[in-house]
Amino acid sequence: MEPKNRLNEDAQQVNNTIARVRRRGGRLKDEYVTLAHGAGGKASASLLQHVFFDEYGNDLLGQGGDSTVLDLALSQQQHPGAKLAFSTDSYVVNPIEFPGGSIGELAIHGTVNDLAVAGAVPQFISVAFILEEGLPIETLRRLVQQMKQAAETSGVTIATGDTKVVPKGKGDQVYITTAGVGLIPEGRELGFSQVQVGDRILVSGPIADHGMSVMMARGDLAIDAPIESDTREVASLTHALLQAVPNTRWMRDATRGGVATVMNELAETTGLGVVLEDEAIPVRPMTRAACDMLGIDPLYVANEGTFLAVVPQERADAALAAVQQAGAPEARLIGSIVEKPEACVVLVTTFGGTRMVDKLVGDPLPRIC
Amino acid sequence: MEPKNRLNEDAQQVNNTIARVRRRGGRLKDEYVTLAHGAGGKASASLLQHVFFDEYGNDLLGQGGDSTVLDLALSQQQHPGAKLAFSTDSYVVNPIEFPGGSIGELAIHGTVNDLAVAGAVPQFISVAFILEEGLPIETLRRLVQQMKQAAETSGVTIATGDTKVVPKGKGDQVYITTAGVGLIPEGRELGFSQVQVGDRILVSGPIADHGMSVMMARGDLAIDAPIESDTREVASLTHALLQAVPNTRWMRDATRGGVATVMNELAETTGLGVVLEDEAIPVRPMTRAACDMLGIDPLYVANEGTFLAVVPQERADAALAAVQQAGAPEARLIGSIVEKPEACVVLVTTFGGTRMVDKLVGDPLPRIC
Repeated sequence: MEPKNRLNEDAQQVNNTIARVRRRGGRLKDEYVTLAHGAGGKASASLLQHVFFDEYGNDLLGQGGDSTVLDLALSQQQHPGAKLAFSTDSYVVNPIEFPGGSIGELAIHGTVNDLAVAGAVPQFISVAFILEEGLPIETLRRLVQQMKQAAETSGVTIATGDTKVVPKGKGDQVYITTAGVGLIPEGRELGFSQVQVGDRILVSGPIADHGMSVMMARGDLAIDAPIESDTREVASLTHALLQAVPNTRWMRDATRGGVATVMNELAETTGLGVVLEDEAIPVRPMTRAACDMLGIDPLYVANEGTFLAVVPQERADAALAAVQQAGAPEARLIGSIVEKPEACVVLVTTFGGTRMVDKLVGDPLPRIC
Repeated sequence: MEPKNRLNEDAQQVNNTIARVRRRGGRLKDEYVTLAHGAGGKASASLLQHVFFDEYGNDLLGQGGDSTVLDLALSQQQHPGAKLAFSTDSYVVNPIEFPGGSIGELAIHGTVNDLAVAGAVPQFISVAFILEEGLPIETLRRLVQQMKQAAETSGVTIATGDTKVVPKGKGDQVYITTAGVGLIPEGRELGFSQVQVGDRILVSGPIADHGMSVMMARGDLAIDAPIESDTREVASLTHALLQAVPNTRWMRDATRGGVATVMNELAETTGLGVVLEDEAIPVRPMTRAACDMLGIDPLYVANEGTFLAVVPQERADAALAAVQQAGAPEARLIGSIVEKPEACVVLVTTFGGTRMVDKLVGDPLPRIC
């Protein structure tokens, strides 16, 4: 599955140019991002070379144009009948760094995870920055390093990118948009239409950590708790799940709007009922305490490294074991697909009562990703 | 080359849901974008359905996940040995609407053109919006319509997207990031390494219109002139050129930094000299007058629908004819590749003098795209 990077002569030449720039005294002297860094001239080239290429530097980014040639023809021959998955997301989280992660890691993991839950093996990712004038170069450098690390862990190649600079007060330090391309092996059929009554619902880990971590990091609350974001790639988990249970029905990562919103989409689209068991849903004690104090339901809080899967009842234990062994020991089976109530999500509470879980209205936690 | 859109059962189901929402009373009641529209809940769903899907609505966007499955496996069988091109760009132009275009058209054309000048046939595009709270929904609707139109003209399918909302004062109405995927037919070899001494340089139309149009639209200058942006797709032009002259050496669109910056990159990377003939470079009289009054060299002004190509000397006239007939009657041959001076761009002026054309330093025209 390793994508083979094409080192063409052009890349060689551009790399030579970059090497020359490096020999000449290679380090960016600016300490802050200025509008000139976005103008496409010498300052832009210097930023690209000394901040991005020095760090990401791979054969693909050196191709020298605004498009990158992906060597997927080869991969497709190795995987006849494979399809391509394509996904994009913008990241505007505030603050840009928080316990357990940063906007850089989110931007890589988020798009990788969107591809993974579609059943794809993520392969290539594009990275577009909108930088606010005055951003410390050191901060940018740190984000770039984190993104490189996240891409490596996720098995994707950063293939192409863009940088724009907006004046102070027209952005918020940095916004990042990524797009990703992945390969879906032949015969993989995931989707709402595969979901059947009796299927079980799996969650890959404790919920609500990301949203609560970002809220805490904002520091404008009366409470403080050491909660870390769950940001991580889930491609290795979905891969293990699909190997163990190829007839997995459907997967989705529970980002904006949390588990409640994703489960509502599942119920609405399939027309079936979703029953969640409150006691089975993993929430870390610290996160639950913070949610309780703030009157926030963890079911609605965003996650950035946690996905939901619907699996056949008879393979549910195998699915759980596969995900747990692949690096998510806190994964749990948390509910089932039922015939009625139609198109609704119901939570069975600890005391045996039930309550409807509606879709999110309004915005309890803006700019969480 | 028509990409075949896959209408799977999931798409059918999501489309049914959307159809149901439409029947229920389908129109967005909000007049302005609010933070709730970015929260992933009901308000988000309503914005997506009533502004984006109503307009773009194609089978791909209806798939219901955050990833879209592209039916490129089929295309690859039709075009064995084809490679994929992948490109991204963020758009932060100010103002968002200007004579001849808008940020929406730029965002489609820009990525389409990056693919086209790489020798690819653009196929799919992703669209990610960062909306500032308070943006009139009517403005967004207009941009979305323009983007749909631009995508149709360019022959690309809007395959996947994202919407985020940032608080008032943390953005500037709207920023758009697009990413595109295109197919490069087998055997197409474009690149710096193909460029040879004696080759001719072609420009597809008059330069500097885009940058000057945006400057005029800002209204903070002492002069005013009816200059329209050149924003357009160039995929139809590059296609015609490559049909007529398959051994075209290299192409690039002359966006940020203008013709001067792109030609400098060509000279630096190939190590060869570029000689431009001042008199041959097309500049509309109104644009030239505005540049003269403001002391701006049109060679450094951004274009958004104009590309440069290097073609073999003996095929230069055929190349020019092909581009002109394909819809760019003002295309011209404007220079040549020479052995010396090495790695430099030289302009031969009307009076027979020569001057060096250096790379752009600093930023005469910020936020032009």
